[in-house]
Amino acid sequence: MAEILLPFLCILSIIWSYCCVLSYIVEPGPRFPPTKGKVWPEPQIEVKTQNFFTLCPVTLNIEVKEKNCDILERAVDRYKNILNDFHGISRKNREVTKWRSRQNHKTSRGVTYRGIIHELQVFLSEPCEEYPHFDMKEFYTLSVDTISVLKSESVWGILRGLETFSQLFYLSNDYNEIRINATSIHDYPQYQHRGLLLDTGRHYVSLNKILTTIDALSMNKMNVFHWHIVDDESFPYQSDKFPTLSAMGAFHPSMVYTKDDIKKVVEYARDRGVRVIPEIDVPAHTRSWGVAYPHALTKCYKNNRISGLGPLNPINNVAYKVLRQLYEEAQEWFPDKYFHVGGDEVDLSCWSSNPEVYQYMKDHNLNTNKLHALFMKNVIAFLKNGTVPAVWQEVYDEGVGLSKETLIQVWKYHWIEEMIKILNDGHLVVFSSSWYLDYLKFDWDSFYLDDPRRMVYGKVDNHLLGNIAGGEACMWGEKVDDVNVISRTWPRTSAVAERLWSGIDYTKEPPPVSREVRGRMEEHTCRMRQRGIGAQPPSGPGFCLVFS
Amino acid sequence: MAEILLPFLCILSIIWSYCCVLSYIVEPGPRFPPTKGKVWPEPQIEVKTQNFFTLCPVTLNIEVKEKNCDILERAVDRYKNILNDFHGISRKNREVTKWRSRQNHKTSRGVTYRGIIHELQVFLSEPCEEYPHFDMKEFYTLSVDTISVLKSESVWGILRGLETFSQLFYLSNDYNEIRINATSIHDYPQYQHRGLLLDTGRHYVSLNKILTTIDALSMNKMNVFHWHIVDDESFPYQSDKFPTLSAMGAFHPSMVYTKDDIKKVVEYARDRGVRVIPEIDVPAHTRSWGVAYPHALTKCYKNNRISGLGPLNPINNVAYKVLRQLYEEAQEWFPDKYFHVGGDEVDLSCWSSNPEVYQYMKDHNLNTNKLHALFMKNVIAFLKNGTVPAVWQEVYDEGVGLSKETLIQVWKYHWIEEMIKILNDGHLVVFSSSWYLDYLKFDWDSFYLDDPRRMVYGKVDNHLLGNIAGGEACMWGEKVDDVNVISRTWPRTSAVAERLWSGIDYTKEPPPVSREVRGRMEEHTCRMRQRGIGAQPPSGPGFCLVFS
Repeated sequence: MAEILLPFLCILSIIWSYCCVLSYIVEPGPRFPPTKGKVWPEPQIEVKTQNFFTLCPVTLNIEVKEKNCDILERAVDRYKNILNDFHGISRKNREVTKWRSRQNHKTSRGVTYRGIIHELQVFLSEPCEEYPHFDMKEFYTLSVDTISVLKSESVWGILRGLETFSQLFYLSNDYNEIRINATSIHDYPQYQHRGLLLDTGRHYVSLNKILTTIDALSMNKMNVFHWHIVDDESFPYQSDKFPTLSAMGAFHPSMVYTKDDIKKVVEYARDRGVRVIPEIDVPAHTRSWGVAYPHALTKCYKNNRISGLGPLNPINNVAYKVLRQLYEEAQEWFPDKYFHVGGDEVDLSCWSSNPEVYQYMKDHNLNTNKLHALFMKNVIAFLKNGTVPAVWQEVYDEGVGLSKETLIQVWKYHWIEEMIKILNDGHLVVFSSSWYLDYLKFDWDSFYLDDPRRMVYGKVDNHLLGNIAGGEACMWGEKVDDVNVISRTWPRTSAVAERLWSGIDYTKEPPPVSREVRGRMEEHTCRMRQRGIGAQPPSGPGFCLVFS
Repeated sequence: MAEILLPFLCILSIIWSYCCVLSYIVEPGPRFPPTKGKVWPEPQIEVKTQNFFTLCPVTLNIEVKEKNCDILERAVDRYKNILNDFHGISRKNREVTKWRSRQNHKTSRGVTYRGIIHELQVFLSEPCEEYPHFDMKEFYTLSVDTISVLKSESVWGILRGLETFSQLFYLSNDYNEIRINATSIHDYPQYQHRGLLLDTGRHYVSLNKILTTIDALSMNKMNVFHWHIVDDESFPYQSDKFPTLSAMGAFHPSMVYTKDDIKKVVEYARDRGVRVIPEIDVPAHTRSWGVAYPHALTKCYKNNRISGLGPLNPINNVAYKVLRQLYEEAQEWFPDKYFHVGGDEVDLSCWSSNPEVYQYMKDHNLNTNKLHALFMKNVIAFLKNGTVPAVWQEVYDEGVGLSKETLIQVWKYHWIEEMIKILNDGHLVVFSSSWYLDYLKFDWDSFYLDDPRRMVYGKVDNHLLGNIAGGEACMWGEKVDDVNVISRTWPRTSAVAERLWSGIDYTKEPPPVSREVRGRMEEHTCRMRQRGIGAQPPSGPGFCLVFS
C-alpha cells in the first residue's frame, strides 16, 4: 500500500512545495494585505456572506423612506458621489491596464455573484434633530442585498449607517470592478463622546484642512471636533466684538477664522454628525491676547521688577470684561451645549509674584490654587444658561464646584488615579492622556490597545464606568501645520476611533493587534486616501490605488 | 546727587519695564523667529552689511559673462522664476492687508537703503561639464551690490552660488517687499558626497515627488540622489530587457518608472548639479524579482522542505544572466560613474539550507560569508569598464577585493570602529548610520550634531579624514509614500546637508544647536515651503507665509 501511495505523495509534495513557494512570492507586496470591504471602526454585530453584488453608480438608487430632512438629503448626495468616485478608480484602472475582456464572475467555493446592487432604502423613523449633541442616538441596522435596507430612529444613526454602507464596497482583486457582499449589521457606539482636539493656535491650519479633518472624523464615526482655537502663540479667532485680538494677535492677517469660516465648519460638521466644541482656554495659554489687551494679563515680577506677562489677571476688570463678551459671542457662533473653558497649566507663581494679586489673595485668605479655582468659577458663571463647561482636569483638581454634566478632560500622568477620583465623585470623564498625537513615538497600534473603561475596571463600581463619556485624541500644534496635520493625525486617530466606537471586552487584557486589524487598517487608510484624506501608511510596505 | 537722579532712574525703570513687557508680547508668535535672508547650509565665509537693496524682478538682470551652456541658461531662467514667485508673496501680501502707503525706507542705526538691485553678473571661467560627478568643483564667490557678481570655475559652483544668491533675499518685516543685503561670500563644501537615499521599493513614490525631492536637494546644496529603486516588496524599475520584472513585480502597472521617467529624473538632477546613483540591491532585498523569475532566487529549506524563496541564487545561471543584463541596461540609463550594488542583509542561512548551494560550498571549500563575497565579486565584475561600485558595509566586511575608489556605505551600529577599519584600509567612506530618517525619534536637531570626521578624529591619521567622502540621509520607505515623504524628509535632511556642506570644527565637541541655527532653520523651512516643497515645521510654534 505504501509503495502505491509513495509516487502519489511525492507528486503531492512537489505540487505543495511549488504552490507554497509561489504563494510566498506571488504577492511580494504589502506587509499586511488590505482587507476587502471591511468596516472601520468595526461594527458591533456583523454577519457577512460570500454572496456579492457589483456596483453601477448610475443605476444605484438611494431612496429615503419615512422621515427626511436637509441633512439627510445632502448625505445621500454625498454618498452617491463617494460611490461614484470609488467606481471611477476601477474605471481608471481598466484604462491604465488596457483591460479588454468582460468581467467573469465565476461562482466558486460558496462565492455567488448576485448581480448589480439595485437600491438602498433608508428608513428614518423619527424627525431629524437640528444639531448633533452629547446624547444623540447613533444606533442603526443595515442589511445589504439587491434591495438593501438601512434603519435608524435618528438621522445621526442614518449617517453612521451610510458610512458603513459605503465602506462595505471594495475593489475586486483585479481592481476592475466594485463589489459588495450581502451583509447584515447591527451597530452602535460604546462611548458617546468620540473626539479629536485640533490646536490651531500654535500653527495656523487652513479652513480647507479643517474641513478635511471633519471628513475624516465622520469616516471614522467620531462625533466631536474639539477646536482648541487660540493659544499663547496666536489668536486666529476673529471676534466681531474684539477684532483687535486677532488683528494684533494672529500670526498674519490672512491667518484668521472669521465668523463665516466658523459657520462653515459648524455646518459642515453638523451635516456629518460631528459636534464642534470650541475651546477658549483661560487663564493660561493667553499670551496672544496681550498684544491687543496687555492689561488683561498679569504682570509677573522677578526681583521686584516686571519680568513679563503671565496668565489673565484674576483681579482685573479688563480681563473679565473681554472674557465675558468673548464667551458670549463664541457661544452664539458655536451652537453645541458644551463650551471648553480650558483651565490647564496656569503659572501660579506669576500670580503670587504680582504685588496687587498677592495683596488680593492676602485680603481674601486665598492661596494661588484657590485663586485659580475662584477665577474658573467666575469664568464658568459667564456661560449662558444651558451651556455646560468642559474643563481640563486641573479645574476639578482645584475643587471648583462643577455640575454633574461638566466634562472633565483627563490629560496628565497618573490618569487611572485621577479617573477613579472623578468617577467616585460622580462626574463625567473624557480621556486623553495616552492619546497625544504630538508624541511621535506612539503610533496607532499603541493607541489602539488603550481603553479608558478597562483602565479603571475593577477599581470603581461598575455602574460608574458609564460615566467615562469617551475620549479625545489630541493633535497639539507645535510641529504640525497644513503640510503634515492630516498625515500625522490620520490614521493614528482611527485607532482611537475604533476603540471608542467598537469597544473591547474591558474585563480582560486586550489581545495584541491582530493581522486582521492591521489588514483592516490598511484598507481603511487607503479608503481615506481615495476620498482625499492624506492619511499616512500605517504599518509597513504597501500601496494604495489612487489616480490623481 | 542721588536725590536728583532718583526720579530720573524711576522713569527710566518704568520705561524699561514697559518696553520689556511689550517686547515680550509684541511677537507672541514663533518659538524661534526666522532669520532674514540667511543661507542654509551656512557659507564658509560670509560678510554681511546693513546696507540693503530691494527686488524688482522685472528689472533684475542676470547676465552670463564668459562661458555659458544649456545647464546655466536653464538655471538662470529657473532662478528668475524663483525670485519672481518670491516677489509675488509680497505683492499678494499687499493685496490681503490692503496696504496703501508707499514703502518708507528709513535709514537708521547704520541701516542704509541702496535702491533696487540691478544686476547679477555670472562669471563661469571653464566650460561646462556634461554631468555632475564625484570630483566636481563647487567652489564659488558671490558679492551682492547694485551690480552683483558670482564667480566660479565650474558650472556646479555657479549653481550653488545662484542658490545662495536666491536665499539672501528676504521679506521685509511687513512682508510688503523683498530685500537683500550687500554681502560678500566665499563658499565651498567640506564633504564632496552629500546625499539622500530614497527607497521606492517599499512604497511607490511618484515621479512628481521625486522631482520635488531633487529640488529640495539642490536648495540644500546636496549633490547625490541615491535611488534605492527596487526592494523585496516591489520592482518598479521597468526594464526594457526584462519587462516582466516590473509587469509582475511592481505593486501596480501604474506604479513603475519607465526609461523616460528615469531620463527625466537624471536630466532634472543634472540641471541642478545632483548626481543620480541607482541602487539595484543584490543578493538580498530581491523577493520581488521572484514573481517573474522564481528560479533566480534561492529555495530555502526547513526540515527538508522548501519553506520559501530567499536571496538570489549564487550558483544559478538564471540569476547571473538577469543580473548581468539588468546592470548593463541600468548603467546605460544612469550615467553616473558610481553604481550601487547593495550587498546588505543577506539571509545566509537560506543559502546553507539549500542542498545544492550547500554542496557547492562544500565542493569549493566556502562558508556562507565567503560565498556572499564570491557572489559580490562576480556581480561587481558585471559593471562595465569605468563604473565604480558603491556597496553597503557588509561587502567590505566580508573581504571582497574592492578598488580604492569604491564607496563603502556605513549604516550599522558600531560605526566608529567600522569607519576606522575602512579608513585604515585606505578606502572611501559614505556615512549613514545615524541619519536614518525612518527613525522618527530622531529629529533634525539630533542629526545636526553628528559629523563623521569628528567621530573618528584622533582615532585615525588626520590625512585619512579626507577619505570620508561624505554621507547620506536615508529615507527608507516602510512608512512613507507620496503623502508624507516630502514632509518627513524635509527639513530633517537639511540638518545633514548643513553638516556636510558647512562642516564643523571637528577637533572639538559640537556646541548645542543655537537659537541662530534654529532661526535660520525656520527661515529655510519656510523658504522650501514657498518654493513648493512641503517641509514640516522644524522646532515649534510658528508660521510661514505662503499664498496658495
